Amino acid sequence: MKAEEIRSLIRENLEKVAETRPLVHHVTNYVVMNDTANLTLCLGALPVMAHAREEVEEMAAQAKAVVINMGTPSPAWEESLLLAGKTARRLGRPVVLDPVGAGATSYRTRLALRLAEEIRPTVVRGNAAEISSMLGLEGQIRGVEALSSPDDPAQLARCAAEKLGCVVAVTGERDAVSDGERTYLVANGHPMLGRITGTGCMVTTTVAVLLSPGGPVLELTAGALALFGLAGEEAARIAGERPGAFRLELFDSLHRLTGHIPAGRLLVEKA
Amino acid sequence: MKAEEIRSLIRENLEKVAETRPLVHHVTNYVVMNDTANLTLCLGALPVMAHAREEVEEMAAQAKAVVINMGTPSPAWEESLLLAGKTARRLGRPVVLDPVGAGATSYRTRLALRLAEEIRPTVVRGNAAEISSMLGLEGQIRGVEALSSPDDPAQLARCAAEKLGCVVAVTGERDAVSDGERTYLVANGHPMLGRITGTGCMVTTTVAVLLSPGGPVLELTAGALALFGLAGEEAARIAGERPGAFRLELFDSLHRLTGHIPAGRLLVEKA
Amino acid sequence: MKAEEIRSLIRENLEKVAETRPLVHHVTNYVVMNDTANLTLCLGALPVMAHAREEVEEMAAQAKAVVINMGTPSPAWEESLLLAGKTARRLGRPVVLDPVGAGATSYRTRLALRLAEEIRPTVVRGNAAEISSMLGLEGQIRGVEALSSPDDPAQLARCAAEKLGCVVAVTGERDAVSDGERTYLVANGHPMLGRITGTGCMVTTTVAVLLSPGGPVLELTAGALALFGLAGEEAARIAGERPGAFRLELFDSLHRLTGHIPAGRLLVEKA
Repeated sequence: MKAEEIRSLIRENLEKVAETRPLVHHVTNYVVMNDTANLTLCLGALPVMAHAREEVEEMAAQAKAVVINMGTPSPAWEESLLLAGKTARRLGRPVVLDPVGAGATSYRTRLALRLAEEIRPTVVRGNAAEISSMLGLEGQIRGVEALSSPDDPAQLARCAAEKLGCVVAVTGERDAVSDGERTYLVANGHPMLGRITGTGCMVTTTVAVLLSPGGPVLELTAGALALFGLAGEEAARIAGERPGAFRLELFDSLHRLTGHIPAGRLLVEKA
Repeated sequence: MKAEEIRSLIRENLEKVAETRPLVHHVTNYVVMNDTANLTLCLGALPVMAHAREEVEEMAAQAKAVVINMGTPSPAWEESLLLAGKTARRLGRPVVLDPVGAGATSYRTRLALRLAEEIRPTVVRGNAAEISSMLGLEGQIRGVEALSSPDDPAQLARCAAEKLGCVVAVTGERDAVSDGERTYLVANGHPMLGRITGTGCMVTTTVAVLLSPGGPVLELTAGALALFGLAGEEAARIAGERPGAFRLELFDSLHRLTGHIPAGRLLVEKA
Repeated sequence: MKAEEIRSLIRENLEKVAETRPLVHHVTNYVVMNDTANLTLCLGALPVMAHAREEVEEMAAQAKAVVINMGTPSPAWEESLLLAGKTARRLGRPVVLDPVGAGATSYRTRLALRLAEEIRPTVVRGNAAEISSMLGLEGQIRGVEALSSPDDPAQLARCAAEKLGCVVAVTGERDAVSDGERTYLVANGHPMLGRITGTGCMVTTTVAVLLSPGGPVLELTAGALALFGLAGEEAARIAGERPGAFRLELFDSLHRLTGHIPAGRLLVEKA
């Protein structure tokens, strides 16, 4: 699919989101709960954060998409991450897994693999180090930040997609999204996105919102990455190197883009 | 009471808050902890967030008002919500209960009713779906967002106040506050308040801060809703449809209003 | 050391941070996780928030500095606070302890003392009431806010440093930092810093980031306090009394100061 076709897809799904206001259920980390709830609203959907085993299945069953984000994991939350993800998949709803910090500790690497295996998510979205660690490869990670971009993110995404049996998005300087057979490269983005916390988690939420009305997963994921990266570019144009202002403008740019995505600005191409 | 009298009441209590800097203890959800702490400070009071059973009673006993907000509930927190609320009530301090997401899952509905019954809060503040679910009525809720305003929020508030034995505030397009006998309608507010997360929780905090110096609960609650809604109007005047900017301006507008509430802008009237 | 020498020290360490991007591991409270992660990034370092016993030692072992902040404590987190702190100390890395709310409840006072005794942190940073409570003295605290500045913060810092066997920073209207023998006073700061939540926790993070490349602990701590206070002054110059705008500008001012600290603005002197 060409960039302009992907732009049409994204616009269509944003319109459907605006009309139907789908619920996007997050079982996510403490750091980004507020940011990703606000981002979900920016995109037109309705967020809910719920994690208790007593309700997590009932909540997930009502959602049009579910985010499983293991950013501040603990054994008490593992069951909730699993239950929400499995419930949504059983109902045929998209689940986006964010293996935050996989590779940084053995606990996180194991948990990421367990979540991927047991949930069978629709999409896994991580940085190069996180995705590498899920393949048993060595990634360079410091806490939750990948230290380097791989020479070939497309290859990494493709291998991971094959192994994990789902669409995999590797985000970094350049993003790659693959279903194991076809792969897209996304060139949108801005270095300022690495200067505020939670932008990886925000991309994951953006993917989930855009998948919620249905449609081709691979192209919608690539388009979501491009859209979020473009919002980063626009925010940086306004805020420059001021991280506080950039954070505010990132929300506003993304919201503005839901109304109108300028032609030729989504930089997506087949690898 | 007329709107101008309620404005005087609110001004008086804001002045008392500025002078005495009361502690407002929150047992609340992860998503809004930061926002409601900042809001409490904007209004001149001092926030504290504490939930451990080991300290929650000691902390609540020092507070001039307590917020009980079940937005990200779990069994481990239930006891803390109860203990904080009951301690404050035993000492005659106002407690505002926010039954976030009641009606969305059976766990939340049960928990909301249990908190209302065991704590006997001063005020319950929720959207129409949350309050309806506490009456055993059907509400339309998606996650934590009410999908529709009831035809008659005044009636809903009145019934709920009778059943729950306390002041009930139903917020939405139009707000209603009732003690079961007398009911006020509040017309302040702006659609942008539905475009950022946590504004319901922020209203709840605003009520708690304004009740902390004492005074007529029904009128202070209606006034708090009007004040917060007015802050939303002012923020939207500056920020337009930019959610990031709106969020910043909401805090600043509310803070500015603590110094001066223009005459004729609090839209409160008897139902 | 004179203020200008301390300024050189701070500049040097900020440059090292920018080059090496050290990991700063936080075991911290729910309210400030997002803010302190963003602050860490503003200063050029990489934040990670992790608390599970299953990974907290492995994460702390990778960090160049660790923040132990007990702002929303519970028994389930005590072990994690201890393990992270002890791991870092065993490896000779700086640990900054923030005894949030010590003195407000007996649980917090006991926990603060336990953390100080068992971790043997490099620096303890608190307000006057928190530090007083750790000495068995009476402080005036309401929730997590000290109600008054001591007449002599330098004496308080000195006594606490002697008792706790580490550098102690007492922050308030005027800050004092002591190692028990030498004491610095810091006059930077602005009242607006008391009008948004989490600024105490942000100072603690600033100290941790500045200690991460190594160097004289006492002077770096005093310099970090001055730098953060100066950011508050600059933010207030732009935002005035608007708390929302102030919060945004605080991040941006601090980030701007990492590039250039104007001469003569760090107000640090020997007591």
